[in-house]
Amino acid sequence: MSESKSIQMNLLCPMPKLNFDRITLGHGSGGKLTHQLLESGVFDLLKNPILDRQHDGAIVEMQGKIAMTTDSFVISPVFFPGGNIGELAVNGTVNDLAMCGARPQYLSLSFILEEGLPMTEFWEILVSIKVAAEQAGVQVITGDTKVVERGKGDKIFINTTGIGQLLEGSDIDIGRIKAGDKVILSGPLATHGIAIMSVREGLEFETSIESDTTHLNDMTEAMIAEFGGEVKLLRDPTRGGLGTVMSEIAGKSRLGIDLHERQLPILPQVKSACELLGLDPLYVANEGICVAVVSAQVADQALTLIQKFDQGVQAAEIGEIVSGHPGQVVLHSGIGGKRVVHMLVGQQLPRIC
Amino acid sequence: MSESKSIQMNLLCPMPKLNFDRITLGHGSGGKLTHQLLESGVFDLLKNPILDRQHDGAIVEMQGKIAMTTDSFVISPVFFPGGNIGELAVNGTVNDLAMCGARPQYLSLSFILEEGLPMTEFWEILVSIKVAAEQAGVQVITGDTKVVERGKGDKIFINTTGIGQLLEGSDIDIGRIKAGDKVILSGPLATHGIAIMSVREGLEFETSIESDTTHLNDMTEAMIAEFGGEVKLLRDPTRGGLGTVMSEIAGKSRLGIDLHERQLPILPQVKSACELLGLDPLYVANEGICVAVVSAQVADQALTLIQKFDQGVQAAEIGEIVSGHPGQVVLHSGIGGKRVVHMLVGQQLPRIC
Repeated sequence: MSESKSIQMNLLCPMPKLNFDRITLGHGSGGKLTHQLLESGVFDLLKNPILDRQHDGAIVEMQGKIAMTTDSFVISPVFFPGGNIGELAVNGTVNDLAMCGARPQYLSLSFILEEGLPMTEFWEILVSIKVAAEQAGVQVITGDTKVVERGKGDKIFINTTGIGQLLEGSDIDIGRIKAGDKVILSGPLATHGIAIMSVREGLEFETSIESDTTHLNDMTEAMIAEFGGEVKLLRDPTRGGLGTVMSEIAGKSRLGIDLHERQLPILPQVKSACELLGLDPLYVANEGICVAVVSAQVADQALTLIQKFDQGVQAAEIGEIVSGHPGQVVLHSGIGGKRVVHMLVGQQLPRIC
Repeated sequence: MSESKSIQMNLLCPMPKLNFDRITLGHGSGGKLTHQLLESGVFDLLKNPILDRQHDGAIVEMQGKIAMTTDSFVISPVFFPGGNIGELAVNGTVNDLAMCGARPQYLSLSFILEEGLPMTEFWEILVSIKVAAEQAGVQVITGDTKVVERGKGDKIFINTTGIGQLLEGSDIDIGRIKAGDKVILSGPLATHGIAIMSVREGLEFETSIESDTTHLNDMTEAMIAEFGGEVKLLRDPTRGGLGTVMSEIAGKSRLGIDLHERQLPILPQVKSACELLGLDPLYVANEGICVAVVSAQVADQALTLIQKFDQGVQAAEIGEIVSGHPGQVVLHSGIGGKRVVHMLVGQQLPRIC
């Protein structure tokens, strides 16, 4: 993280010289101001041979099975402890491709800017996009910029859409999971959601809680290289949290899932914050963790492998697939109780990603 | 058009039964309400085997050179004469792929909805998306839905990102155009922009002016099949209008372009409206037309081919590439005058697409 922060500082200073300090409607005109904005440094910053062609679209060479995924990011606030909307938009789409068992390769990047957005903020977000893309090993190859009037947007919304080839040996398919398979969680729960809530509600904790936003593709790629089809399902529990994702998996697979509360990794300060705020960490959003359903015989090795990655140090086996209570997730509490975990009803925290 | 309108009516009635009539923040939670929204009819409406997998991403099989393009649509108003934001979002991205010399195949679809959007309006937009996708021969394979608070968006913003394989024989490359090549415009100028302006400004004309939004990929595919590399450049002059696009082409190719005002196709009611409003039709946005730069020896045949398509009936040869005045576009007026055409400065009409 400190290395990436120092790259960011170097890119932020100096910011390109511009004859405007805020985004205006004209920057979305497709005319001279749009060109000025893009050529003021945006193209240079994200530079690569494919983007440099500057046509309406980009051309890449690909073969075989390709995953495609899209996400629009509307997080508020745009800057939050541990990151900003820029890296979130890169990591989010990178991770969705990783969850398909693909190698994320190319991203499109589309901005909806609100008139009045300070150029310094836009530039900082762009720098984060660049750094996050480099760290995840993806290239931004095409883009779009629109501007809406003040009060018709909220600073900046970003859509990233990604494509990438399926990894050799990958066979991610919910239809393949069966009773006995193990459920691994790659990192601590609820960190992103609590980080956002802390700034939104102006809460101060003794230790600062930072979003866990990061790319997971190197970890999933290593897992698939090592265990191939024994990795049966990958999901990142973002909006809706772990509870919603597990409930979806149980529903679609028509199998039961047992989760063990004591085994759920969670940072102590996040746990305290959840208690203070009356939030169930099972429904708080995450960004930089994933759930892996793997065959029992590789579960221990898979856990060890995940723990070798910075993002996976706190990984844990949190449960198993069972044939009892089909379609239902049951959480076994630390003191011997049981409760059924449903999908999130309503909205716990809007605009979390 | 009337066929597509009747398909639309059949799909609109009945609308799926829902226990909500407006979009709420909970529909963007990723939890139960999001599922309810999608399963209320959205998935059924856009049904195809790839989308039906409902994973975080979609998997498709592709080979070779692939074009990728993205666009976020923020048009206001969302419903306008001749269409709505839904078909615009499909056609816009389909056409950007077509301009790359690709066959549009797969789209991602991402919504940013404003809390309070009536479900009837959302449904009507979805139906238009379905019809437009079918007409253009593309499949929506993955998507995302976010909801922002009232006053932080404007009804609905849509991102579509598309991928498609490059057509055999296609060699679209600005570096290949040379003096002597001809410039063809596939249809009348400025129709979309004036249609939007007429509703926005509450203007009434004697004849109604409808947006020209349509897909152009069947036309460009026929051109490339017939003339291969003799089709050197394709561009759709959307935001910024024909003037901006021609000026970009001249700038990047370092060649001159002569345009002949008398040959520019324009609907009489659009021409009158432009005069009335003091707008230069060269800078008014278009949606359903494209510029093709082709070798002189195939220009006549290419024009005849384009005119065989409904979208190309009014196509015309509007100018040529010249070695004089490199980097500059010169418009020869009907009465013998000349003027240099620059890029659009400022913003003629915000949120036109």
